[in-house]
Amino acid sequence: MLFKFHHALPCSQKPSFLLKDQWTKVMRSVNMENLRTGYLFPEISRREYEHSEKYPDAKIIKLGIGDTSEPIPDCIASAMAKQAMALSTVEGYSGYGDEQGEKALRKRIAEKFYKNMDVKWEEVFVSDGAQCDISRVQMLFGSHVTVAVQNPSFPAYIDSSVIFGRAGNLQEQNGKYERIVYMECTPQNDFFPDLSNTPRTDIIFFCSPNNPTGTAASASQLRRLVDFATANGSIIVYDSSYAAYISDGSPTSIFQIPGAKQVAIEISSFSKFAGFTGVRLGWTVVPKELSYSNGFPIVKDYDRIVCTCFNGASNIVQAGGLACLSTEGFQAVSKVLNHYKENAKILIEAFRGLGMEVYGGENAPYLWVHFPGSSSWEVFAEILEKTHILTIPGRGFGPGGESYIRVSSFGHRQTILEASKRLTSSLRKFNFN
Amino acid sequence: MLFKFHHALPCSQKPSFLLKDQWTKVMRSVNMENLRTGYLFPEISRREYEHSEKYPDAKIIKLGIGDTSEPIPDCIASAMAKQAMALSTVEGYSGYGDEQGEKALRKRIAEKFYKNMDVKWEEVFVSDGAQCDISRVQMLFGSHVTVAVQNPSFPAYIDSSVIFGRAGNLQEQNGKYERIVYMECTPQNDFFPDLSNTPRTDIIFFCSPNNPTGTAASASQLRRLVDFATANGSIIVYDSSYAAYISDGSPTSIFQIPGAKQVAIEISSFSKFAGFTGVRLGWTVVPKELSYSNGFPIVKDYDRIVCTCFNGASNIVQAGGLACLSTEGFQAVSKVLNHYKENAKILIEAFRGLGMEVYGGENAPYLWVHFPGSSSWEVFAEILEKTHILTIPGRGFGPGGESYIRVSSFGHRQTILEASKRLTSSLRKFNFN
Repeated sequence: MLFKFHHALPCSQKPSFLLKDQWTKVMRSVNMENLRTGYLFPEISRREYEHSEKYPDAKIIKLGIGDTSEPIPDCIASAMAKQAMALSTVEGYSGYGDEQGEKALRKRIAEKFYKNMDVKWEEVFVSDGAQCDISRVQMLFGSHVTVAVQNPSFPAYIDSSVIFGRAGNLQEQNGKYERIVYMECTPQNDFFPDLSNTPRTDIIFFCSPNNPTGTAASASQLRRLVDFATANGSIIVYDSSYAAYISDGSPTSIFQIPGAKQVAIEISSFSKFAGFTGVRLGWTVVPKELSYSNGFPIVKDYDRIVCTCFNGASNIVQAGGLACLSTEGFQAVSKVLNHYKENAKILIEAFRGLGMEVYGGENAPYLWVHFPGSSSWEVFAEILEKTHILTIPGRGFGPGGESYIRVSSFGHRQTILEASKRLTSSLRKFNFN
Repeated sequence: MLFKFHHALPCSQKPSFLLKDQWTKVMRSVNMENLRTGYLFPEISRREYEHSEKYPDAKIIKLGIGDTSEPIPDCIASAMAKQAMALSTVEGYSGYGDEQGEKALRKRIAEKFYKNMDVKWEEVFVSDGAQCDISRVQMLFGSHVTVAVQNPSFPAYIDSSVIFGRAGNLQEQNGKYERIVYMECTPQNDFFPDLSNTPRTDIIFFCSPNNPTGTAASASQLRRLVDFATANGSIIVYDSSYAAYISDGSPTSIFQIPGAKQVAIEISSFSKFAGFTGVRLGWTVVPKELSYSNGFPIVKDYDRIVCTCFNGASNIVQAGGLACLSTEGFQAVSKVLNHYKENAKILIEAFRGLGMEVYGGENAPYLWVHFPGSSSWEVFAEILEKTHILTIPGRGFGPGGESYIRVSSFGHRQTILEASKRLTSSLRKFNFN
């Protein structure tokens, strides 16, 4: 049975049930037509739903979508509750804030995450999350720009590139968009692309610690990346949403690399750092030193986009962000992070115990588990069927994810231990070659 | 002195201070280059700042940016505080929600605002605000689509159309973008465009009650609009963000007009309805009946965009939205709305007492005050200078706003009474011809 991701979806290209004389005369965007696959995560939810219908009594363990599980520390929740209540008072009420975010939060982000990196608070744009910022950054550029992504990578880089008209057609034979450059990241190259073989593009999406492979680029690797971008006049869109998970001293920001401010934008998030996946808070750093080919500062255009197409993150949520970056909040958040890191260790052991090659998990909440020769959708389905554990098929992260699955370490300890048990006992019975 | 809006801004076209060899090779988007004016509202803030520097002791009254002033009713703030605190418990914590919004809130919006209009909850997409949704709706379409807007209109329709490459060049002689159709709305046509003279476009942005003119389209006018769109196969993007202010029985939704579901999308907001300007919550209705020229349902593409480029509104904020739509919450919110409506009456009287023609204010929190023959930026500056009252020059809403100012009725009662006093006593001394 074939589990190619873009075949696994219901065909939605068919004309609708509507009468033809009721159709508008507005053409469907070619870009949307090119976006032939369903977005990965809703598809995983659909599979989960199907499974629960089939096995109504099964206790499904979700190690699929990277969704935080632990409560938000009290001091942070309290700060948001306090801000919400303040809005009900004459003195505490406030309406529109600055579209770019509250100055206090912008300053705190600059101080806390970019110490000694010369990032100024005016370069920090607070947002409702990294995924939203990926699209906002895309708005900066014309449809003519060329894009490179890690292969595998978080699907929003490619999907938003398609929506913004810079991907070209999907090629059935290899599952790649013709105008996108795929930078292969495999165990053989230590999950860092061979830049000597990478063609120049205008934009390079680069995620570290990487989602899905869970690997963090080292300082020397990032030095090469910045040099590559500088030599080519490219712009790196660096996604550091998982930086808080770095345990081995790898850089937590591209701006630790001297010269990066001339060639990089950094997108980051409170989602996985503080359990804000549903609360929604992120930020993007656009350095003043970064300019287009005519010398025009990109930060001015980004500011304009934020003011025109966005209207600031919720003031209640921003109060929570500020609380995360207080001494007490930061300590409390770190404790939760350690919980997830411990989870990752437990899961690594379980898969290694089964003799599998496991990557990631040390600097990221994701394990990248190799099933050489197998289809990742088949592995996904088999694990779900036999253990009721939801993972993500690597193929969902691009053709480079084939034969891998991504396993998330978010979950209560008991759940992770139960997952470890199920894997160990059930999967021994199977022979993934 | 000339106060043409797009000349009043600092020229930001100059090459940056950066050394040429540090520029990237990424071309600036032609679309962003076409966006030659500063976004209106930050520019107003800049003017306010300058004025406060010049008159440090003056008590500036802000009737400019339409920013709510009254506290959020306690039962709504409490619901958000409760949700924030719940996130700090094991039972109450939740991560990612549905990108489209929580089902309970989508249902409540459908029931409360679209009763008897056959709007299903699956057609309601909860968001972080109407301004953000304007751009998200733009993402649906290719850059080839043509756009019509009311003239004057809320700047985000035109500005986002420019960013998405469908506006063409700005024509210096008339301040209009060459590819945009401007539908003139004046007292002569009752602020409703002459559709018999309006060329067909793919998209028609239509805001009612209108920002800035404060006028609501009647049922018969909207009937003509829907017929016009149906005959042309156009899509109306209807902005009903101010619907809660309608007092004269005009339709509060385009979907009150039979047949509108085949031709319209509706964007709306909690901002002005519930004082959520800083809290951030809105929604967009994309009917299942609405399709492209090939019969493909637009709601499927919108769903895809919401899942790829957005990640849902904050769960804390959604709890507040739900509270607004409870019986108690709705009553409390209505009281605040009445406060603003009373404010509008006071301001209407003040301007009429000065012999000025005032439009709006009955169905919207905005007055549209006519100063025939005057430059709106000059009137804006003069009012600010003589009364320390901040308004908005009509020209900021497009060329059709020349010789008008928009006056917001958001404010504490005392402030509005003080504004009325200042206007009455100071403006008598001036002779706006």
